[in-house]
Amino acid sequence: MPEFFNVLAPEEAFEVLRKHLSVRVDSERVSTSRALGRVTATNIVSPEDLPSFPRSTMDGYSVRAADTFGATEGLPAYLELAGAVPMGAAPQVSLGPGEASGAFTGGMLAVGADAVVMEEHTQRAGETTIEVMRPVAPGENVLQVGEDVRVGDEVLPAGHVIRPQDVGGLTALGITEIDVARRPVVVIVSTGDELVPPNEAPGPGQVRDINTYTISALVEKHGGVPVPVALVEDDYEAQRDAAVGALDKGDVLVFSAGSSISSRDLTASVIDSLGSPGVLVHGISLKPGKPTIVALIDGKPAFGLPGNPVSAMVVFNLLVRPTLYLLAGCEEPPEPATVTARLARDVASVAGREDHVQVRLNGTENGRPTAEPVFGKSNLIYSLVRADGTITVPLDKAGLYAGEEVEVRLF
Amino acid sequence: MPEFFNVLAPEEAFEVLRKHLSVRVDSERVSTSRALGRVTATNIVSPEDLPSFPRSTMDGYSVRAADTFGATEGLPAYLELAGAVPMGAAPQVSLGPGEASGAFTGGMLAVGADAVVMEEHTQRAGETTIEVMRPVAPGENVLQVGEDVRVGDEVLPAGHVIRPQDVGGLTALGITEIDVARRPVVVIVSTGDELVPPNEAPGPGQVRDINTYTISALVEKHGGVPVPVALVEDDYEAQRDAAVGALDKGDVLVFSAGSSISSRDLTASVIDSLGSPGVLVHGISLKPGKPTIVALIDGKPAFGLPGNPVSAMVVFNLLVRPTLYLLAGCEEPPEPATVTARLARDVASVAGREDHVQVRLNGTENGRPTAEPVFGKSNLIYSLVRADGTITVPLDKAGLYAGEEVEVRLF
Repeated sequence: MPEFFNVLAPEEAFEVLRKHLSVRVDSERVSTSRALGRVTATNIVSPEDLPSFPRSTMDGYSVRAADTFGATEGLPAYLELAGAVPMGAAPQVSLGPGEASGAFTGGMLAVGADAVVMEEHTQRAGETTIEVMRPVAPGENVLQVGEDVRVGDEVLPAGHVIRPQDVGGLTALGITEIDVARRPVVVIVSTGDELVPPNEAPGPGQVRDINTYTISALVEKHGGVPVPVALVEDDYEAQRDAAVGALDKGDVLVFSAGSSISSRDLTASVIDSLGSPGVLVHGISLKPGKPTIVALIDGKPAFGLPGNPVSAMVVFNLLVRPTLYLLAGCEEPPEPATVTARLARDVASVAGREDHVQVRLNGTENGRPTAEPVFGKSNLIYSLVRADGTITVPLDKAGLYAGEEVEVRLF
Repeated sequence: MPEFFNVLAPEEAFEVLRKHLSVRVDSERVSTSRALGRVTATNIVSPEDLPSFPRSTMDGYSVRAADTFGATEGLPAYLELAGAVPMGAAPQVSLGPGEASGAFTGGMLAVGADAVVMEEHTQRAGETTIEVMRPVAPGENVLQVGEDVRVGDEVLPAGHVIRPQDVGGLTALGITEIDVARRPVVVIVSTGDELVPPNEAPGPGQVRDINTYTISALVEKHGGVPVPVALVEDDYEAQRDAAVGALDKGDVLVFSAGSSISSRDLTASVIDSLGSPGVLVHGISLKPGKPTIVALIDGKPAFGLPGNPVSAMVVFNLLVRPTLYLLAGCEEPPEPATVTARLARDVASVAGREDHVQVRLNGTENGRPTAEPVFGKSNLIYSLVRADGTITVPLDKAGLYAGEEVEVRLF
């Protein structure tokens, strides 16, 4: 398990984990109105037809379509009004030949009607008579029973992240509770002799813990429950004790390792000792983020993220984020927000390594914002704060040129 | 206040509201670790320098740079080891000329050292001697005091939406509590004689309420607190009573109006009666979403969204979403998630109207996903469920051609 013995591309590293990972979190029943962002645990099938009755899609008149055939502005069809069908009520009106009935958008048609003429295509010709200036086909301006959804249709597959319109779609069918994946619990262990909690004043050589809080917020953003369990020194027994206790409480273990080589090696030994098969990947062809550890501990995924806050965030987004969705049964996580921009200056990289470069979006040029790389030593938390997102220089490229179009993944 | 008397473009409609809207929600103090997604209520200024001591950015040796000048692989500089500076502690080592001290990434330098030589550029030459094969300049591989942030620097402006790295940046400075805008409370009144709550079986001509739940989820997604207050019939007094009570409880009023003309006119009258100046905009050059109402009621924004669920969602995203951020003091809402795609077929529109067309993302072609328009009558909630996002046909275009590159705004 020497560091960088077998350096994988980020995608390969995730595939190794995916292949080994068979556990999924269990499900729980929630009110549909509280399900935004949750992942469906089962296929959801429609219990009924929607709409359940033919609905007018326009304000106008329900008619027997045949009565309008051949109508023109010069030679309109004359129809007798047989009263309106009020909203939210069954029609009391039945149409005979040559009759029409007032119809409202979303309302029912009169009995015997098979189409709706738009208000705009009619004219009053008397107290109870209208002129129809255009013919309608049977079914025109009418939503048929089941046209939106049919009884038995799968309306949402398992593993789907619920969006606002999905909430509306379910309530439309009377589905007021659904089974969703329990939120994955991510236990976070931060390590490093130099770390103190944020509410303490650091002494000489000490710094406040950043990663516990950045990682917790990332977990929260992606539907998990962050549980920071410990801030421990660079000591094998202390780290192992913290990790063993932590893993019992969670579905995923995230170690924020120190940044020095010895500290990273220590983390790898600790993680590898926790269970089987242990460390799967140690070292990724990624900048920043090379010294990343991916492990599986008796069925539970574990990660060793680099101590540098920039690397930790890049690796979280590449590996931990999709793992959280995978545990919840979602194979394809929602697309991250991106913006297409034009690169403001050359970015050098090395072929065979995937580079994630922080950029700031500046003024728009030719309809595209400009992406200005945020240079600076990679361990500055405020380079992340000052950036709007990252661009990727793929493995097979040695850099990007100023003026190239790039996809900026927004934070 | 006749409908469509003065039809504005969506952007103009928002500008009219923005010009009239002076109220902002008040602020509250929250723990930084609970502030993800909240909007800063004040500028936040750094109380200290970060880092607070010069930190090594590499594993290696801290040195007096001048001692390495001229060093090469053939003619290395020989330095005597004067002990290491452990992580998280003040240096006990002071360097004399020709001396070096072990340094760890993130740790302090020995007293008297001004640079760090990377481990990789050294070699052991004896028990206490190293060879340095490359010279370092003063300051090389060292993060200087305040290089990340200086005391007094503005680290976050007011009106900023807190991201995971911002949480980390604040905890790094010991800022464990911040003032954020209170979440805007959005009271929602759904109207329509045909509506029943989702847990009821609709009778003939009745349908379940969709918009209350879609709008609530949209409010939640964008940082507000949804408060559904009433489901009322199409009756002036009933709607007015519901709205008056509702407005007292919230910062924003959203009316989901019925879809028929009479129902929309009723909503406009009710909203206009609630306070001053009343309805500002009635009708927008937008499809779907033309019959939208924008109002200001004694300082509070109010919206009449079309009853059709697709229109309601489009209008929410264009007008209500930025209003929620504006109330919280954020002038530029976070960019919505977008994906650049290639349009699969022609989309017709009308110049002078902004069209929002639902699309589904299909397989990738030449590195771009394909955006397939989801056609269908506009009042189908499941057309939204089946879509991945929307594309916009701008006001000045009469359509888009198959093969054009489009920005898909993801749901």
